[in-house]
Amino acid sequence: MTSANASGSGPMFKRVALIGMGLIGSSISHALRRGGLAGEIVGHARTAETRATALRLGLVTAAYRSATKAVVGADLVILCSPVGVYGAIAAEIGPHLAGGAIVTDVGSVKAAVVRDVAPHMPAGVHFVPGHPIAGTEYSGPESGFATLFDNRWCVLTPPTGTDQAAVQRLRALWEAMGSNVEVMSPEHHDLVLAITSHVPHLIAFNIVNTAAHLERVTDSEVIKFSAGGFRDFTRIAASDPTMWRDVFLNNREAVIEMLGRFAEDLAHLQRAIRFGEGETLYRQFSEAREIRKGVIQAGQDTAAPNFGRADGPAVTGAPTSVEPKR
Amino acid sequence: MTSANASGSGPMFKRVALIGMGLIGSSISHALRRGGLAGEIVGHARTAETRATALRLGLVTAAYRSATKAVVGADLVILCSPVGVYGAIAAEIGPHLAGGAIVTDVGSVKAAVVRDVAPHMPAGVHFVPGHPIAGTEYSGPESGFATLFDNRWCVLTPPTGTDQAAVQRLRALWEAMGSNVEVMSPEHHDLVLAITSHVPHLIAFNIVNTAAHLERVTDSEVIKFSAGGFRDFTRIAASDPTMWRDVFLNNREAVIEMLGRFAEDLAHLQRAIRFGEGETLYRQFSEAREIRKGVIQAGQDTAAPNFGRADGPAVTGAPTSVEPKR
Repeated sequence: MTSANASGSGPMFKRVALIGMGLIGSSISHALRRGGLAGEIVGHARTAETRATALRLGLVTAAYRSATKAVVGADLVILCSPVGVYGAIAAEIGPHLAGGAIVTDVGSVKAAVVRDVAPHMPAGVHFVPGHPIAGTEYSGPESGFATLFDNRWCVLTPPTGTDQAAVQRLRALWEAMGSNVEVMSPEHHDLVLAITSHVPHLIAFNIVNTAAHLERVTDSEVIKFSAGGFRDFTRIAASDPTMWRDVFLNNREAVIEMLGRFAEDLAHLQRAIRFGEGETLYRQFSEAREIRKGVIQAGQDTAAPNFGRADGPAVTGAPTSVEPKR
Repeated sequence: MTSANASGSGPMFKRVALIGMGLIGSSISHALRRGGLAGEIVGHARTAETRATALRLGLVTAAYRSATKAVVGADLVILCSPVGVYGAIAAEIGPHLAGGAIVTDVGSVKAAVVRDVAPHMPAGVHFVPGHPIAGTEYSGPESGFATLFDNRWCVLTPPTGTDQAAVQRLRALWEAMGSNVEVMSPEHHDLVLAITSHVPHLIAFNIVNTAAHLERVTDSEVIKFSAGGFRDFTRIAASDPTMWRDVFLNNREAVIEMLGRFAEDLAHLQRAIRFGEGETLYRQFSEAREIRKGVIQAGQDTAAPNFGRADGPAVTGAPTSVEPKR
């Protein structure tokens, strides 16, 4: 599987080892092959089923049961498993990593990843943690696709003292896979993602469960009448439970801090409802529209109504503005 | 504007008056014209701009500044304004309604609508409250489209003693506009919608505002890294603030009850995070997937990853299942 990348100067890495081949690992394979960015892609998966699927789909040319065997000779190793097993994997593969190799990951938390992985990295190996902020509610090797990272952000959180050439090589790779790249500290990453990803997922999981356990409203009613807003939450709440368990166990402080702010603000809104304070509600609801405009202008979501769902308007003309009006 | 409906037996109503022509009012016009269901459609809007737009788009053949004039001679009147002004409108139009006319509405709350509107309905006029559970984050007369109600549910909440023939005529109309129809009490409607629509909107408004007012995370970061889940909430939070203010002011008890349940469940999850109870988190997250499957099976959402957003996979093949796995 030798191919040239877009610049015609050959692949950016000779042998890429994917440790884990779920939604993100398989999407990386698609994006690497789209760009001709890797001379060879091999992978490790825990289950025989995933290994067989990865080979069948052509995600990798070799699929290993042993993570240790997968990393032999790789100049880039990407951890794509749930973050809860990173420590054990790092301990296992550490002694077998090639000199000069770059090790990175795609985990949704970063401080805990540095804590768990860095101690196992031998001298001469460059550990550059990363997090592509992209995904869908589906999981497994068949759910990946080449465009997943296009125009999404990938955050790199190299610990102090990391080799800058390694950081630049990884940045160039993510950019070649379609991403924008930003570098920040692991701790700041965890704080930002707590509010933009972790708490939103937690409250989506939570409201779906609240709805499912009401005595006076049936599950059937919750499902039938979900188009009023609830269905959007069910999509987020369909995300991989193992991945999300590990995220919350490994970003406790930031998540609990953000949940505290969320609860405080929600109590404020609830009090406004209780006492009929329409002005407060109107003001808060209007302000939220501004952030939506920013998200669309930044290219991070579609402006099409209902996300452009199949049941939306057939016309492609611009809908009316989201300007608040009385 | 005379046309025959699908059954070839002529329009179902001779003259339909839309009181308010925003997203829902304009979509009703599109759906009525698609099916040839109305002999004539006229409307009332408060602003000259909306009236001009409605005429330009052909939503109505006459657009009145006065709601009273709009309802003259109408055999169907549909209130499509924010529910906070229903009482005043009902008092105004009541004396001018035609004998035998059906008056309905599209408001997101129902007990308060019965309270505010019913006392103003003269004898011989049939008041059948309704709520089509469909919408987008856009508002105004240009945001409507004919397919908005297709395969969505419309709930009718006729007060005890309502003429059953009137209920049946309205049911048939909504079915002809593409909807499924269910009849329930106003109080039960308000409880069901509190959990499937009102509380989801409130927590979306709330988290967007929480994110916007953090000291340690900038608005720019919130927007850039929104693809991790937050962007979905910004869409819901872009909904019309006037409409939602009125919803919360008019469904206080059910919303506060559901918020209490939501907060209780969220505290339970937060405690599990604090004490590192991975099993509890995994179990709760896994259960949420079942509800998502029900929503898709019921045809209330697309199974396409990320709602089928334009940045999703190009292939139309089925993605992998949302079965939980360890």
